Amino acid sequence: MSVTAQLKSLSLDNINPHVKEAKYAVRGELAVRSEKYRAQLNKGEKGNLPFDTVISANIGNPQQLDQKPITFFRQVASLLENPLLLEKPEVLKEHLGYKDDVIARAQKLIKDVKSVGAYSQSHGAPAIRQSVADFIERRDGYPSDPEHIYMSGGASSGVNTLLHIICSKPETGILIPIPQYPLYTATLAVLNARCVPYYLEEGKGWGTDLNAIKESLEKAKQEGTDVRAIAVINPGNPTGSTLSPEDITAVLKFAAEEKLVVIADEVYQTNVFAGSFVSFKKGLRDLQKAEPGKYDNVELASLHSISKGMVGECGHRGGYFELVGFDSEVAAEIYKFISIQLCPPVIGQCIVEMMCNPPREGDPSYELYHKEYYGIFEGLKKRAFALYDAFEEMEGVECQPPTGSMYLFPTIHVSPKAVEAAKSEGRTPDEFYVSRLLDATGVCMVPGSGFGQKEGTLHFRTTFLAPGTDWVGRITKFHKEFMDEFR
Amino acid sequence: MSVTAQLKSLSLDNINPHVKEAKYAVRGELAVRSEKYRAQLNKGEKGNLPFDTVISANIGNPQQLDQKPITFFRQVASLLENPLLLEKPEVLKEHLGYKDDVIARAQKLIKDVKSVGAYSQSHGAPAIRQSVADFIERRDGYPSDPEHIYMSGGASSGVNTLLHIICSKPETGILIPIPQYPLYTATLAVLNARCVPYYLEEGKGWGTDLNAIKESLEKAKQEGTDVRAIAVINPGNPTGSTLSPEDITAVLKFAAEEKLVVIADEVYQTNVFAGSFVSFKKGLRDLQKAEPGKYDNVELASLHSISKGMVGECGHRGGYFELVGFDSEVAAEIYKFISIQLCPPVIGQCIVEMMCNPPREGDPSYELYHKEYYGIFEGLKKRAFALYDAFEEMEGVECQPPTGSMYLFPTIHVSPKAVEAAKSEGRTPDEFYVSRLLDATGVCMVPGSGFGQKEGTLHFRTTFLAPGTDWVGRITKFHKEFMDEFR
Repeated sequence: MSVTAQLKSLSLDNINPHVKEAKYAVRGELAVRSEKYRAQLNKGEKGNLPFDTVISANIGNPQQLDQKPITFFRQVASLLENPLLLEKPEVLKEHLGYKDDVIARAQKLIKDVKSVGAYSQSHGAPAIRQSVADFIERRDGYPSDPEHIYMSGGASSGVNTLLHIICSKPETGILIPIPQYPLYTATLAVLNARCVPYYLEEGKGWGTDLNAIKESLEKAKQEGTDVRAIAVINPGNPTGSTLSPEDITAVLKFAAEEKLVVIADEVYQTNVFAGSFVSFKKGLRDLQKAEPGKYDNVELASLHSISKGMVGECGHRGGYFELVGFDSEVAAEIYKFISIQLCPPVIGQCIVEMMCNPPREGDPSYELYHKEYYGIFEGLKKRAFALYDAFEEMEGVECQPPTGSMYLFPTIHVSPKAVEAAKSEGRTPDEFYVSRLLDATGVCMVPGSGFGQKEGTLHFRTTFLAPGTDWVGRITKFHKEFMDEFR
Repeated sequence: MSVTAQLKSLSLDNINPHVKEAKYAVRGELAVRSEKYRAQLNKGEKGNLPFDTVISANIGNPQQLDQKPITFFRQVASLLENPLLLEKPEVLKEHLGYKDDVIARAQKLIKDVKSVGAYSQSHGAPAIRQSVADFIERRDGYPSDPEHIYMSGGASSGVNTLLHIICSKPETGILIPIPQYPLYTATLAVLNARCVPYYLEEGKGWGTDLNAIKESLEKAKQEGTDVRAIAVINPGNPTGSTLSPEDITAVLKFAAEEKLVVIADEVYQTNVFAGSFVSFKKGLRDLQKAEPGKYDNVELASLHSISKGMVGECGHRGGYFELVGFDSEVAAEIYKFISIQLCPPVIGQCIVEMMCNPPREGDPSYELYHKEYYGIFEGLKKRAFALYDAFEEMEGVECQPPTGSMYLFPTIHVSPKAVEAAKSEGRTPDEFYVSRLLDATGVCMVPGSGFGQKEGTLHFRTTFLAPGTDWVGRITKFHKEFMDEFR
């Protein structure tokens, strides 16, 4: 250590050890390396790189991969940013093609928030929370109370809030599906609380297995863990699957018996390619209706976001969570906690409102909205199956059919020779595979170890957001060469 | 406790005790009550309320109090939200008054971020960080490295990040000025770390007192506290004062000797009414230049925001911090930590860019920008002194002259009778005064206890953002009646 370093306050040895323990592979070493390649190519310095473009299949970032924003949302947002434009409705309509409902929505939202440059209430503007509650009621057929809606900066910030409240000591445990989106394990690490893993059933389309959950809970209890909640991601990230209504009911009944808060991460609720989405809120209300009084104790926090689905507005950091069955004193602590960071981005709140309350049949903007929305949906579905078909053709790769979200999470079987080669680089075999893939093709994916996987299995996660199919061909070619090299 | 409550997982008794300990009065009980009054008045249900409008002087929220956004920023933002408008430059220019530099800036920023709906790099878009670094270099006359700039969701999120990294155990302590903005104490409470208070010198315009800081540090060391950093808020919140260059130098020298990270909260750097702003970065580089090698160990994190100043874009949640002298491994952990929440709002990042790089003399938008910017500045200054003059006239009130930020923090002396009346309501005398003020006038302020104050002293904090002077008259009238009632 240099003299200057010795005189510093902070070093890797004395900063928060819980931050150090956190792992977040989605933006880890490979992502950083892919950004370097991209910068290199952008500067026209291709050098020895054997590819012309970088494909960021490591992260669900639709607009980075050329998904076009929904016109209605962005037209309204432009007026929210510059309300002076509303003084010239004839220019907007005649020269810029803004429809009456665009103008009306902007006027309404400005009334609701006063200015997108002003702080809102800590949990969001009241009229926006009302609109979210109305959406939930239409979706589920059960009432929703705007006072129980909390706007958030993407769903990530909502998960951070909920885990902060629930994790009260180092022994606190949260049941987390494995594989999982690493926001959960990373946040639990920072909070010095315990991840209680429960494995999803890959062979059954990555469904929940109640016996596996029970076993995990019992094992955790024996180890002195105070398990307080169960997280479910539906549709699944990274699994690309949608839970059956039976799985949802089973989890809710189990949570009721075991006094567990249910954290339902439902940010992919519109990315469903088979059957239709059933929310945990609806599942819970159905149970409560069928057997009055029996499930009144269940505490459910359900999260949604503008980052995913056909909206894809990640950069705007908008989302919400709804609390069901929470104690009012606990809710007051949640309110105080989020107040410390003042409020979520207000323009993001407005886009949440539009996602929840888009143009309806008969509205001037409906036709275009409908065309754009389903155009994106069909494009995603098509690419999901194209990628799935490609994986099906690959030697040593097995993939569950895509039924939801934006990802595929295939199993890969590699040879002992590849395992050895990985070891010699200090990498796990899945990291090694994905690292080689990046260097050979410019396609950035995330190894299964970044999400968790059953011991002895190997996976990788890829989005199917990138346009075209050229990049799928790159993967197929690489895979064949990799398998041949390490045969 | 009801049967249902007993079957729940979460109650006030078992949630995170550190969240419960956190206090955040800026959005506490009085703020909630004032919002209720506002909602009541908006519905036309005045009832017995002795006022017609609520004045939210509890929080620095300029646009909620009718401060107009800067036109250039919002015109560009409207194009970022709807880039299709850029296809019709003639309509923008001829019918909507958008100047060429507005269009050029929007084109540049869209190139930089691809879409405001896409995630950026975790610490912000590279070209925006470059622009921030260029601004810092122009401001201070010393270079700044864009790789050391971290965009954040307002400065609050930056403070949260820094404290998360530094606080490694319950014994970790951070020197915090008292009075302080409660973000600091609240975040330390959540992190289960220690606030090491050092009192500012009210009699000397709320300057830092090196002897007081030394005493606090020694006392903390004796109590087993591992003090790792010193926070400074300059210009001050809630104090309304600007530190002298001598105070800044003294703090930096002290930090170098004691191996303390300096957290410089400089969000009010353009709200300076006397002298000119000197950044801690400049102060540090000056010291390093004067005595080469002697201060190389200093670690400085300097924060800025679009929420304050003449920009006032709180709702957009934009800000940044610059790290100076940090170990690269520590910086890598900061990068990982912020990655878990993906990225700050991208439109907020773009407004940071515009704040740092506004229209310059000769640019088409410069004249209007200049007029708006200095119009707001002069308005704030005028109201600051009008309020100060009013306080000077009030019996039992003493106030330091306003030299910076958006607040005044006068001392108030109340009679023993008022102290008694407060006690019977279970309130501190300053809370009692401010609560009475709200009920009588609709003006919402924050009691000094929300920021910390020397024992035996009483204060309140008010912004001077509200337009007009009617509300100042309301305070004067209330104060006289309060003093008379409790004489």
